[in-house]
Amino acid sequence: MNVPISPTLAANEEIARRRKHGQQVVNLAFGEAGLPVHPALRDALAQASGKNAYGPVAGSVALREAAAGYWSRRGISAHPDLVVCGPGSKALLYGLLLALGGDVVLPRPSWVSYAAQARLVGVHPIMVAPPPGEGGVPDPELVAAAVAAARARGRTVTSLLVTLPDNPTGRLARPETVRRLAALARELDLTIISDEIYRDLLHDPAATFLSPAEVAPERTVVTTGLSKSLALGGWRIGVARLPETGLSEPPHASNPHASNPHASNPHASNLHGRLLGVASEIWSSPAAPVQHAAAYAFGEPAELVRRVAASRRLHGIVARAVAEHFTKVGAHLDDPQGGFYLYPEIAGFAGSAELAAVLLDRHGVAVLPGTAFGDAPDAARVRVATSQLYGESDEQRTAALHAEDPLELPWIAASLRHLEEALTALRIFG
Amino acid sequence: MNVPISPTLAANEEIARRRKHGQQVVNLAFGEAGLPVHPALRDALAQASGKNAYGPVAGSVALREAAAGYWSRRGISAHPDLVVCGPGSKALLYGLLLALGGDVVLPRPSWVSYAAQARLVGVHPIMVAPPPGEGGVPDPELVAAAVAAARARGRTVTSLLVTLPDNPTGRLARPETVRRLAALARELDLTIISDEIYRDLLHDPAATFLSPAEVAPERTVVTTGLSKSLALGGWRIGVARLPETGLSEPPHASNPHASNPHASNPHASNLHGRLLGVASEIWSSPAAPVQHAAAYAFGEPAELVRRVAASRRLHGIVARAVAEHFTKVGAHLDDPQGGFYLYPEIAGFAGSAELAAVLLDRHGVAVLPGTAFGDAPDAARVRVATSQLYGESDEQRTAALHAEDPLELPWIAASLRHLEEALTALRIFG
Repeated sequence: MNVPISPTLAANEEIARRRKHGQQVVNLAFGEAGLPVHPALRDALAQASGKNAYGPVAGSVALREAAAGYWSRRGISAHPDLVVCGPGSKALLYGLLLALGGDVVLPRPSWVSYAAQARLVGVHPIMVAPPPGEGGVPDPELVAAAVAAARARGRTVTSLLVTLPDNPTGRLARPETVRRLAALARELDLTIISDEIYRDLLHDPAATFLSPAEVAPERTVVTTGLSKSLALGGWRIGVARLPETGLSEPPHASNPHASNPHASNPHASNLHGRLLGVASEIWSSPAAPVQHAAAYAFGEPAELVRRVAASRRLHGIVARAVAEHFTKVGAHLDDPQGGFYLYPEIAGFAGSAELAAVLLDRHGVAVLPGTAFGDAPDAARVRVATSQLYGESDEQRTAALHAEDPLELPWIAASLRHLEEALTALRIFG
Repeated sequence: MNVPISPTLAANEEIARRRKHGQQVVNLAFGEAGLPVHPALRDALAQASGKNAYGPVAGSVALREAAAGYWSRRGISAHPDLVVCGPGSKALLYGLLLALGGDVVLPRPSWVSYAAQARLVGVHPIMVAPPPGEGGVPDPELVAAAVAAARARGRTVTSLLVTLPDNPTGRLARPETVRRLAALARELDLTIISDEIYRDLLHDPAATFLSPAEVAPERTVVTTGLSKSLALGGWRIGVARLPETGLSEPPHASNPHASNPHASNPHASNLHGRLLGVASEIWSSPAAPVQHAAAYAFGEPAELVRRVAASRRLHGIVARAVAEHFTKVGAHLDDPQGGFYLYPEIAGFAGSAELAAVLLDRHGVAVLPGTAFGDAPDAARVRVATSQLYGESDEQRTAALHAEDPLELPWIAASLRHLEEALTALRIFG
């Protein structure tokens, strides 16, 4: 089992190393939200510092109720009994792939960890390009054929994953595409996993967002977390909304004394029960004090709603400014719509590895090559993450969050200048 | 992938359900330390509430340095670069089994999650009985034959796991047994995983404890955590000490831009690199504020050393008192030596499932059947966890911790009376 360290996490450690050696690097590689913890969340964590019990595998009742409320307010049916919490939505995604136990259809490109997790689980990622101009969704025109081909080779295909809005492309799938994928999932009997961790960071909150859970609630798992919208990546908290057909008997009804545990739970074969089984043997539950703070957050108190809105605005302004710099030197890219990512293509390079290496080694600009996201090696596309530009300290980041024009803050302006120079030089000497 | 929920966690939820329905249940099923968080740890968590960065996959430098110091003070060579942190030692054990990728020799009985994790990973647990009177170690007399038989069947066997001191038996392996297992591991080319999470709760701190890492440091992984010694189960923090031959290049040296990530890290096939790869794709890292508090704890400040000592004393007193009640009714059991467990056998039952069911349904005493630990179904052995007797509230638990004679506290005395009556009735009507 040879698994390289996740490229995003590795990139961050590499940048830290280079900076330690005195190299000036603009970090456009790392998808961390780059903002401070809201004081109310710090208080909530401190209040819960006495919580040391293991607690239910699915997560505390308070957190599951809050998460169900969060989804209900967005038109997604959710019941606390159908919510499962984990130490990051990453862990939940791994648990879901393991519990589903079959090949998974992924968009190409897509977030680095989906395909890596599939390989860890021992299943195949089936990568399908998105419709032109979209990202985070496999093209419905191509999915049926890809699934049929895999099945003809004797593979079991059980799921289809979408990212709304997307990392790495920053694009949001059109509602029509989501509808067609949901119909296809029904036809092909696939579970849909909808990773909506960037949902609240859609730059235009009025944009039409359609979750597959609204169209096919009976077969859609939605995952989200607080790493992006509230910048709590290091706190490790995610939640999943499972479909109703995935519901097991409540876990407390299983009989711990049965010698054959399956016999005591006739529904152990369903997704909810299987996910809880996997969770109980790998991570038990997220840290209890973090669960307490997350329950507060998913309740969406006004102060946190304001914080998310300010973050969304900042991410949008900086992502668009960076996009303009790429466009100016002739890169091809679609406008970023959510999160803090863009996915430009620059002509004149043999592939994304070369482009990324030249950007880092000659110009001190760190990005991730498209290959990390499963993209074709000969396509010179890179993922640009813009959220590390907000500053190095909590003071700078707070200033960025509240600035009328964050682009005028000296440290952001300086990074953008560095980028502009790098891109200009790249075009001339690349 | 059908995985029942972990029996210990399921038992706890079942007991909560029965109590909610008015049933009086003495909880001897759940292996939670049952003590409050030390105020200094609460403060440390609150201080770190601003920490929200993802941080290194292996864990913060401060935590890894503290853990290495903790091991060094116990005669185990450890370097911060060889320490990997995870959200509980459970997660690390899963990651290790996945990274090792071969069958694992386990003691029979052994902690519920080892065999379950092996099955999740897709390898076989090879269960071998301990030497008479010991627990947590497979009998060296039997290991070579068991490994040879598995290899003759075409299986790849890569590791051997020990628990020092043991859950479920409460016994500590003799140094001579550890030495022989280490020699065998060399002969058979097995990695030793030594789960030492109960080490600091050895009732007699003067007892001779020998870690396989002292005998075979080049092939032993030691895991531990703060769930038991400092009652931080719900905080989810564990650490692993990897053998030096398992060291990869420091993860920051991997090149995030290589299109073939293996090519960039010639040591990706080693255990350290593989474990980091697995960790980065499943859990990223433990919660950052928890890491901060854990670094403080592994530094072993005087106030926490005193807390561990008080906990050790309480666990020993109550475990011995419970053991006496079982011995009085003719149960066979070896004296508990560490942690808060005993593993009695009671004649006159068809097996452990029947014994556990009768104890719970007729007598309101919850224990776990030996089958949960891989023991033979027709052996009427159950695991008795004594740490839930300390009280229901932090006040009661704190009183238990500081009581001259905790057995005289009314709530502990009442539970022991309930148990005594149940065992007497069991012998009469069983």
